[in-house]
Amino acid sequence: MTVRAGIAGAGMVAAVHADAIRRAGGAVIGVAASTPERSKAAAARLGADLAFHSASELAVSGEIDVLHVCTPNALHGPLVRAALAAGKHVVCEKPLSLTGTDSDELVALAAESGLVNAVPLVYRYAPLTVEARERVRAGQIGAIRLIHGHYLQDWLARPEDNNWRVDPAVGGASRAFADIGSHWCDLVEWISGHRISELTAAAQTVLPRRSAAGHETFAGTEAESPATRSPAQDATESAQIAVTTEDAVQVLFRTDRGATGALVVSQVSPGRKNRLWFEIDGAERSVSYDGEDPESLLLGGRDRTEIVRRDALSPGAGRINAVPAGHPWGYRDCFAAFTEDVYAAIRDHSASRDHSTSRGPRTAAEPAPAYPTFADAARTAHITDAVLTSAAHRSWIEVS
Amino acid sequence: MTVRAGIAGAGMVAAVHADAIRRAGGAVIGVAASTPERSKAAAARLGADLAFHSASELAVSGEIDVLHVCTPNALHGPLVRAALAAGKHVVCEKPLSLTGTDSDELVALAAESGLVNAVPLVYRYAPLTVEARERVRAGQIGAIRLIHGHYLQDWLARPEDNNWRVDPAVGGASRAFADIGSHWCDLVEWISGHRISELTAAAQTVLPRRSAAGHETFAGTEAESPATRSPAQDATESAQIAVTTEDAVQVLFRTDRGATGALVVSQVSPGRKNRLWFEIDGAERSVSYDGEDPESLLLGGRDRTEIVRRDALSPGAGRINAVPAGHPWGYRDCFAAFTEDVYAAIRDHSASRDHSTSRGPRTAAEPAPAYPTFADAARTAHITDAVLTSAAHRSWIEVS
Amino acid sequence: MTVRAGIAGAGMVAAVHADAIRRAGGAVIGVAASTPERSKAAAARLGADLAFHSASELAVSGEIDVLHVCTPNALHGPLVRAALAAGKHVVCEKPLSLTGTDSDELVALAAESGLVNAVPLVYRYAPLTVEARERVRAGQIGAIRLIHGHYLQDWLARPEDNNWRVDPAVGGASRAFADIGSHWCDLVEWISGHRISELTAAAQTVLPRRSAAGHETFAGTEAESPATRSPAQDATESAQIAVTTEDAVQVLFRTDRGATGALVVSQVSPGRKNRLWFEIDGAERSVSYDGEDPESLLLGGRDRTEIVRRDALSPGAGRINAVPAGHPWGYRDCFAAFTEDVYAAIRDHSASRDHSTSRGPRTAAEPAPAYPTFADAARTAHITDAVLTSAAHRSWIEVS
Amino acid sequence: MTVRAGIAGAGMVAAVHADAIRRAGGAVIGVAASTPERSKAAAARLGADLAFHSASELAVSGEIDVLHVCTPNALHGPLVRAALAAGKHVVCEKPLSLTGTDSDELVALAAESGLVNAVPLVYRYAPLTVEARERVRAGQIGAIRLIHGHYLQDWLARPEDNNWRVDPAVGGASRAFADIGSHWCDLVEWISGHRISELTAAAQTVLPRRSAAGHETFAGTEAESPATRSPAQDATESAQIAVTTEDAVQVLFRTDRGATGALVVSQVSPGRKNRLWFEIDGAERSVSYDGEDPESLLLGGRDRTEIVRRDALSPGAGRINAVPAGHPWGYRDCFAAFTEDVYAAIRDHSASRDHSTSRGPRTAAEPAPAYPTFADAARTAHITDAVLTSAAHRSWIEVS
Repeated sequence: MTVRAGIAGAGMVAAVHADAIRRAGGAVIGVAASTPERSKAAAARLGADLAFHSASELAVSGEIDVLHVCTPNALHGPLVRAALAAGKHVVCEKPLSLTGTDSDELVALAAESGLVNAVPLVYRYAPLTVEARERVRAGQIGAIRLIHGHYLQDWLARPEDNNWRVDPAVGGASRAFADIGSHWCDLVEWISGHRISELTAAAQTVLPRRSAAGHETFAGTEAESPATRSPAQDATESAQIAVTTEDAVQVLFRTDRGATGALVVSQVSPGRKNRLWFEIDGAERSVSYDGEDPESLLLGGRDRTEIVRRDALSPGAGRINAVPAGHPWGYRDCFAAFTEDVYAAIRDHSASRDHSTSRGPRTAAEPAPAYPTFADAARTAHITDAVLTSAAHRSWIEVS
Repeated sequence: MTVRAGIAGAGMVAAVHADAIRRAGGAVIGVAASTPERSKAAAARLGADLAFHSASELAVSGEIDVLHVCTPNALHGPLVRAALAAGKHVVCEKPLSLTGTDSDELVALAAESGLVNAVPLVYRYAPLTVEARERVRAGQIGAIRLIHGHYLQDWLARPEDNNWRVDPAVGGASRAFADIGSHWCDLVEWISGHRISELTAAAQTVLPRRSAAGHETFAGTEAESPATRSPAQDATESAQIAVTTEDAVQVLFRTDRGATGALVVSQVSPGRKNRLWFEIDGAERSVSYDGEDPESLLLGGRDRTEIVRRDALSPGAGRINAVPAGHPWGYRDCFAAFTEDVYAAIRDHSASRDHSTSRGPRTAAEPAPAYPTFADAARTAHITDAVLTSAAHRSWIEVS
Repeated sequence: MTVRAGIAGAGMVAAVHADAIRRAGGAVIGVAASTPERSKAAAARLGADLAFHSASELAVSGEIDVLHVCTPNALHGPLVRAALAAGKHVVCEKPLSLTGTDSDELVALAAESGLVNAVPLVYRYAPLTVEARERVRAGQIGAIRLIHGHYLQDWLARPEDNNWRVDPAVGGASRAFADIGSHWCDLVEWISGHRISELTAAAQTVLPRRSAAGHETFAGTEAESPATRSPAQDATESAQIAVTTEDAVQVLFRTDRGATGALVVSQVSPGRKNRLWFEIDGAERSVSYDGEDPESLLLGGRDRTEIVRRDALSPGAGRINAVPAGHPWGYRDCFAAFTEDVYAAIRDHSASRDHSTSRGPRTAAEPAPAYPTFADAARTAHITDAVLTSAAHRSWIEVS
Repeated sequence: MTVRAGIAGAGMVAAVHADAIRRAGGAVIGVAASTPERSKAAAARLGADLAFHSASELAVSGEIDVLHVCTPNALHGPLVRAALAAGKHVVCEKPLSLTGTDSDELVALAAESGLVNAVPLVYRYAPLTVEARERVRAGQIGAIRLIHGHYLQDWLARPEDNNWRVDPAVGGASRAFADIGSHWCDLVEWISGHRISELTAAAQTVLPRRSAAGHETFAGTEAESPATRSPAQDATESAQIAVTTEDAVQVLFRTDRGATGALVVSQVSPGRKNRLWFEIDGAERSVSYDGEDPESLLLGGRDRTEIVRRDALSPGAGRINAVPAGHPWGYRDCFAAFTEDVYAAIRDHSASRDHSTSRGPRTAAEPAPAYPTFADAARTAHITDAVLTSAAHRSWIEVS
C-alpha cells in the first residue's frame, strides 16, 4: 500500500518530510502553504501532485491518509484536531502544541481515535543513539549517577536574525527550550530510562530586540527572494521588534531514579550549528554522544574508553542501520527511518481495518510503538512548562 | 516526468540506488538478481513493481528509461552494452569495466548514443568536497604542491572474510585499488584540477588464502541466511581459496601540473571502516577532508586554520546542500544528490527528444555534465591499470 | 640568585613542584613529609638536600627562602601562618585554607608581610588560555553572554577509591568543587573578566561509603607499597567509611556583568581523566578550550570557526610559550612558567630589600602580580562556600 | 652526583636541553655560541655559569662531564670527535653527522671510548609511544602488515622562510627527511621491531629560491633582533639564494619482516605545525598515534576501537610517565625523561669508574641502553642516504 501523504507547511522541514515520505514508500499527494500561491510553488518544489488552498482544507481531504504538520507551532493544535476528526493519521512536528495541557488533550484525542500519531523526535533514529540505549538498558554502564550536556546553535545570534519562532504568539512562550532543549530531554530520557522529576532553571533573552524584517539564516523556502522584495520591505529593515522568548536556558535537574543532571541550551552560541551533546555517567562506564558526529559513540571507562561505530551493533540499532559503518548517517536518514516505522504502523492499521472489525484505541496490554508519539511530545511540553515556571520563580519545581 | 528505473543487482548498493531513485522522483520499476527467485525477493525488499528473470532481460525492457547496473563487476560491460543498444540511459557502478581499454569503448558507445551515462563517484556530492573544489579553483590555497592521503577499510582484514570482489574473474584484476583507490583518485583530481600523470606503486596480497565459504562483513542482502544453508555448505566452510587480488596498495605520483603525491589504500586496516582522507597542500593554504566526517573541511594556514562547515557555502556547494549545517549529511544524501543531477539530465534528454529532432552525441562545445560520467570512470580505470603495471615492474610508469 | 625552596608534603604534586623549582632556577633544599622516615625517602626521591623532621620545622628554617605547601588541605593554614611569620615567601596549593573566611585572613597576613604569596592556579599558564584571555580582553568575541563547561575526572568513581581529600577533617567540607571546580571558576573569571556574583547549586555524594583502606588511583608516593603493608591493614581492607564530601556538583550562575552560566563538576565520570572544558559565548564569537588538549583553542563564529594554535600568539601568550607550536605543552610546563613568574618576584623582592629600605605591603597603585596569589585562591574559596550553602538550601545565593 | 653539562649551540633546542639538564639533576655549567659575545648572551639566557669562547673549547673543558651538541649539523661530527677524545660523554642532536658513513665512524669511536653517547630521538619518550611499543611487542595487534603515516610542518612554506638547515653545507644534503623524516622512521622501527630494508622515494624542492635574509619562523634566539639589524641587512632582504635541499619527500618501503609502508614528509604543508602521525596495521588490530596529541593512542579493531590514555599503562610506559592521565605530557617532558635516562647512565659510568678498573667498550652480552644512542642515529642516516639515492635514480634501493 502506498501511503498517501499531505504536508501542511512549506519550509525547510517540509522538504525533509517530503524526502522521508518518498523513502518510506509513500506518495506526496498534496501540500498547503500559507497562501494558495505559495502552495503552488511548494507543490512544484516538493514534487507534490496537488497544491491545496489551505492547510485546513488539506487536513480533511479525502486524497490523503496521513497529514504531516510542518506549520508554525500555533497551528499545530488546530490542524491535528481537524485531521484526527477526519480520520487521518498524523505526523506532527514538535512542539505538539503550545502548552503541556493542550498537548495532553491531543494525546487523549489521538488515543481515542486509534489512529497513528507520531512526532519526529528523530534523534532516536540515529543507529548510535539506539546503541547507547540498548547498552544502557543492558546494564553496561551500571547505575546512572549523572546526566549532562548541551544543545547549542548560532542561527539566532545576531540582532538581524529573526524567525516566526521568536514570536510567542506563533511559536509559543518558549523558543530555545521548546525547539531544541526538548529534543535533548527526550533523547536522554529515552536512552537512560530516567525521567526528569524536578528542576531549577534560568532563561535569558540576550537579544531583547531583533530586526522586524527577519533574516532567516537557513533560507526558509517560503521566504521571498531578495529580487521580489518591495521597497516597503526594505524600509522596514531597520525596524525592531521586542522579543520575549528565550535565547538561552540552563537547567539543573533530578530524575525519578535518583540521578542528577545539568543542561545548557542556546541559540546564540557562535560557531555551534546544531550541537546536541550529552554524557551519561554510570557507576561502571559513561556514554557520550555528539549529534553533529553521528558516526561514533564514546563509551568511557576508567581503564578503557571505546569508540563505538556502526559496526557490530546491538539488534535494535542494527534494525535502523542501512549503510555500512564509515558511510555517514545523515539527518535525513533519521527522518527516513522514523517515517518507515510510522508508515509501517499506518499500513498495519489499514490492514487490520480491512480484515477485521473496527480497531479501537490501543489498550494498556499493547506495547508502546517503536516510534515517538504524541505522548512523548506532551512529555517534553511538560518539561518546557516547568522550565519556564522555574526560571520565573528562581526555584526548584517538580515536573508534572 | 517520473523516470522509470530498473536495477540490475540486489546487494547493499542496489538498495542505496533504490533509495536515491525515489528521492530523485524516479520509480523503481524492476529489479533483477542472480536468479528469478532472488529477483522476486529483491523486488519485495526494494519495493520494486516487477521482478525480472535476468539482468539482461531487464536491460532491454520497454518498462524502463534507465538501467542502474549494480551487479558484480564482470557483468558491467555486457549490461551497459545491452542497455545502450536498447536506448536506455545507464547509471553504472564503478568500475565501469574490468580494464581501461574496455572502459574507453563503453565511453565511445555512450557518446555515440547521446544517452545519459553516469557513474556514482558520489564523494563529489558531499557539499564540503564541492566547497573544497570551489575554493581550490578560486585560488584560495595557491599553487598546489603536494597531494596525499589514504583510503582505509577493515572489512577484508581476516582470512574468513571473502566476497565476490576478491575473485579476479568476477571483480577484476585489481580489488582494493579499483574499489576504493579509484574513488580517492577521482576525488582529488576533480578537486585539484591536477591529473596523475606518472606513478610508482606497490601492491600486496597480505592474505593469500581466504575462506571459500566467504564471510560478508556487511551482510550482502543476496546472501543466504544461515537458516537456509545446507550441510554441504558448512562442510566447505573450512575450505580455502587462493587469492591474487591486492589487499593494499601504496602509490607515489606526479601530476600533469607539477605536484607530487602519495596514497595508501587498504582493506585490511583494523578499525578503519571507510576512511577516505586527503590533504592538498598549496603555496598559501592546505585543504584536508575526512569522508567519514563530512561535516567539516579543514582549511590550514600558517597563521590561521579554519574549520569550514556547511554554512556560508560557495554557490556550487550550496546547490547540493539540502539541510542546515550541523544536521549531518549522509552517504545516501550524496547518492540522492548525484541521482537528482542524472535524472534532471534524463528529463532534459526526453524533453529535447520530444520537442525536436533526434539528439546526437554531445559536441565539444557543450559543457561537461555536472555529474560524473563513463569518461570519469574510464579515467580511474587507466590509473588502476597503471598501478598494477607499476607494482609488477617496480618502476615509475606513465598513466595513459 | 638561586631561590632556596622547601617543600612541605611529599605526594604527586610535591614532585611537580620540585620539578618546577629546578626549571625556574631554584634549588630544592629541603622536604618534609608526614614522618621523619618519610621525609628521608621523599628527600631522596625529590633530590632534595635535606630531610626535615616536620613541616612546621621546615616552614621556619633559615635554610629556605620560600615554602611550597603541598600537604593535605587542613595543614595549609597553619603552615602558611608559620612561614609568613618567619619571613618566608609562600607558594601554597589550593585551597588556600578550608574556608573563605580563613582564606581572607591569610590574604591579609600576606599583604601585611609584603612577602610573595602565590597559589598554583596553573591553568592560567597554558599559552592558549592566555591567548583566550587576550582575545576576549581585546574584544574579539564581543560582549559575553553565556559561560559554560565542565570539569570531569574518574579517579574516585569506585567504592574502593579513597584518598585523604574525601575526609572533610583533612580535605575540607567541599571536595570535588574545592579541588577542581575552583580551577574552572578561576580560569573562566580570569579569562572573561566577569565574576560569578550569584549562583544556585546541587551537590551529590554518589558513593556514601568508601573503602577505609583507600585506593589511590594515581599512586601517591607517600603511600606504603603493598610489600610493607601489615596483616592488620589487609584486615581492614573491607572496612567502609561514611563519606560526606561531594562527588559531583552542578551550578547555574550569573556574573556581575550580566552573563549567565552553568558548570558541571564530577570526580565520578568514567573515562574522564582531567577534562576541564569551557565555552564562552560572546555576541560575535565564542571561545572554547579543553585542558586535556592544550594545543588548540577553538574560536567559533557563524561564518568561520578557527583553530588557534601556539603560533602567531598575542604578546601575553608569547611570553609564556617556550616551544614551537606542534611540540606539545605539558601540565608541568604550566607549573614551570608559573614558578618562573613567582621566583622572578622573589628575586625582585630580595633585590629591593638589599638595595633599599624595608619593602612594605603592596599599595593600591601597584599593578597586581602576573601570577595568581592568595587573593585569587580566597576568591575561589568564597565561590566554594556559596556552592555548599546553595546546595544545602536549594536556592540562589549571592557570592560574597 | 651532579652531572656537569656543557651546551654547544644557543638556539631553540639548546634551551630545551638546558631545561632537561636541570630537571635531570644536572648543572648547566657552560655554553658556547657562534661568537664569544653570543656565548655571553646565551649563558645569561640559559642560566649557565660560564660562557665559552668557542664550542671547540667547551668540548674539551675540564669543567664538564657531558657535552650537549646543539649546533648546526655540519659541526656535529668535529665536536663529537673532540669531546670523545677528551673523555666527555656526548648527547648529540640528530643528525649525528652529515652522512651515514661518517655516522658509522662516530658510532665506532664512541663504542671504543666506553663513554655514554646519546641522540635525543625523543618521541621514544612519550609514555604512549612506549605503550604502543609494549603492546606491539606483546602481540596485541598481531603480525604487522602495513606501516604508514606522515610528518608535516609548515615553517618553511614561504619563499621568505629560511634557516641554516636549508644550506647543504651547514645542514647536510637532506633537509626535510634528515630533520623530521628521520624521527618518523626511528619511531616506527622502534615500536614495530621491523626495519626498513628497501625503499623507493621522491623528493622535491618546491621553493628553489628563498630569501637570503632568512626569516626564522620560530624565533631562533641567536638571531639578531630587528632593532640591531643594519641597513645593509635590510638591503639584502630581497636577495634570493638558490636552494637544493628538499622541502618534501614521499617514500614507499618494505621491511625486513615483510611489511610494507609509505611515508610523506613535508615542511611546506600550511597549518601543520609538527604533525608526526603513524598507523601500524596488524592482523588483529591497528595502532595509530599523533605526536601533536600525545594524550591518546588509538587501538583500532574491527569490532572495537579503543582510546588508550596515560592510565593503566604497561610497565615500560609507566616508568616514563610522571603525571596523571589528563594532565598533558609535553615535548619538554620527553626531553627530560630522555635526559634522566642518559644521566643515570653517566652516573653509573662514573660509579663503575670510581670503584673498578677502567670500563671498556660495551660487550655484545650487555643489553642495549634504554635511551637512543649514536647507533640509532646512524641507522636513520643510512635511511636518509637511501632516500636521496632512490629519489635521484627513481628506483627501489636497499637500505644498507
